[in-house]
Amino acid sequence: MASTELTVAYPGREGAHSAAACDRLFPAARLVPLPTFSDVIDAVASGRVAFGVLPIESSLVGPVAETHDLLYESPLSIVAEAIIAVNHCLVGPGPVDLADVREVHSHPVALDQCRKLLALLPAAVAVAAPTTADAASIVAGLADPTIVAIASDRAAAINGLKILDGNVGDHPEAYTRFVSVAPYTRLDRRDGPWRTAFSFTTDHRPGALFHALEPLARHGVDLNLLVSRPIPSRPFNYRFDAVLGGHPLDPDISATLREMRSLTVQLRVFGSYRADHAGGVAAQSA
Amino acid sequence: MASTELTVAYPGREGAHSAAACDRLFPAARLVPLPTFSDVIDAVASGRVAFGVLPIESSLVGPVAETHDLLYESPLSIVAEAIIAVNHCLVGPGPVDLADVREVHSHPVALDQCRKLLALLPAAVAVAAPTTADAASIVAGLADPTIVAIASDRAAAINGLKILDGNVGDHPEAYTRFVSVAPYTRLDRRDGPWRTAFSFTTDHRPGALFHALEPLARHGVDLNLLVSRPIPSRPFNYRFDAVLGGHPLDPDISATLREMRSLTVQLRVFGSYRADHAGGVAAQSA
Repeated sequence: MASTELTVAYPGREGAHSAAACDRLFPAARLVPLPTFSDVIDAVASGRVAFGVLPIESSLVGPVAETHDLLYESPLSIVAEAIIAVNHCLVGPGPVDLADVREVHSHPVALDQCRKLLALLPAAVAVAAPTTADAASIVAGLADPTIVAIASDRAAAINGLKILDGNVGDHPEAYTRFVSVAPYTRLDRRDGPWRTAFSFTTDHRPGALFHALEPLARHGVDLNLLVSRPIPSRPFNYRFDAVLGGHPLDPDISATLREMRSLTVQLRVFGSYRADHAGGVAAQSA
Repeated sequence: MASTELTVAYPGREGAHSAAACDRLFPAARLVPLPTFSDVIDAVASGRVAFGVLPIESSLVGPVAETHDLLYESPLSIVAEAIIAVNHCLVGPGPVDLADVREVHSHPVALDQCRKLLALLPAAVAVAAPTTADAASIVAGLADPTIVAIASDRAAAINGLKILDGNVGDHPEAYTRFVSVAPYTRLDRRDGPWRTAFSFTTDHRPGALFHALEPLARHGVDLNLLVSRPIPSRPFNYRFDAVLGGHPLDPDISATLREMRSLTVQLRVFGSYRADHAGGVAAQSA
């Protein structure tokens, strides 16, 4: 047992999409499945594992709010991202007529991504599971052909389920973006292009967001993502979680962040990471 | 039976928070509960009901993605809003020791708003229900004191459940913003202040969002909300759903929207409505 073994925590269980993201980011690591997103954050923050991997965005349904909010509340940094193609399969213990399906188990986001399939199952109730891999495991345990899951082919294989139908998502092209988190900021700069994630709050005057974004435009910096998140203690007030193209050691980026800090109430950098273009998917500039 | 009866559809069943929003917005209407959000949209679009009411934002967990996306895809307009204080209660058929609770049923957003309570229930599994009112109904049907729900006091009363604990949300102050939708745009301008909801897409150059927001800043118009939503057919590209303070018949607002339209790829107005300050909650400017 090597004491230098690299450990990586992810939410869910074997066969989860998060596990596929771990394999891409840390091919040689020992993977540690944990029940919840906050368990993953806690395991990294306490040093029990070296890294954590969490989904942060779906190309179909948008930001994963829980990850955004846990990162904001935690002392961890984002150190890498991985974009994973999601191929939802309808899986079950054996052949079934679609009209006879009584229950479809899956993660709520996956259910939301398969609305057209669910509309074809008039007798079926959608049942929420903690992850798609949990759904596959639950359905395997019930061993009733009329109770099926939406999960990956990987989860089907691990749980001994048959693939009743492949690619059942509403959109043929669907991706989930995952981030890996660690208790330090990554400052090496080999192998770009880089992304820098940060969060800011503006004051309440008209034009406050416009003025906060001005340094980005003047320095020609890409704004790859802008997500507004509610501030729970101040109803209908928001912070913005953002991703720009570049690294804080680039002079333009350091100037941009310094100037934005002077134009905002609060600005915190979440970390920098190499953009994942492995799937051939490039994020836009806003 | 009056043929002029006003009918209003909402998602869920009697006791749902959406029903409370209907009561506020349409005190004399006949309410029509429907199973899903898209059923509500369809009922309004087909003329079977005059209005629909849907939750669009939680002050704790942010935008309701499904409502944003259904509105974007539908021909309906927003004609009113109502901000409802949410008081989550732990409800069940009878007294139970918290350590013995086996299942907590509720809507996923409500479960997400009661993380501190769930951490106190080590033996409990969280079970997702379509609405908090459905959760109360399911728990009433099971009649097992160790199976409880998070729901409103109204849902508890309707289903003959006891309130085991009141105000179990993580934050003492929590609100849900609802909108009512109709097949027409509201152009009367009595009783301000007004809000105008719209949606736009920018091209992919650096600074595109900044330049799109410039007319708002120059005309001194409040940007009350900016939510980025993914474009499913174009992974990691986004549209922005926004709310500004004012009415399109105000000269400043019509000029702002006209100028923004020339700076964006696409801009669509979702409608105008009177801001709800009934709860004493004012939205910020961004």
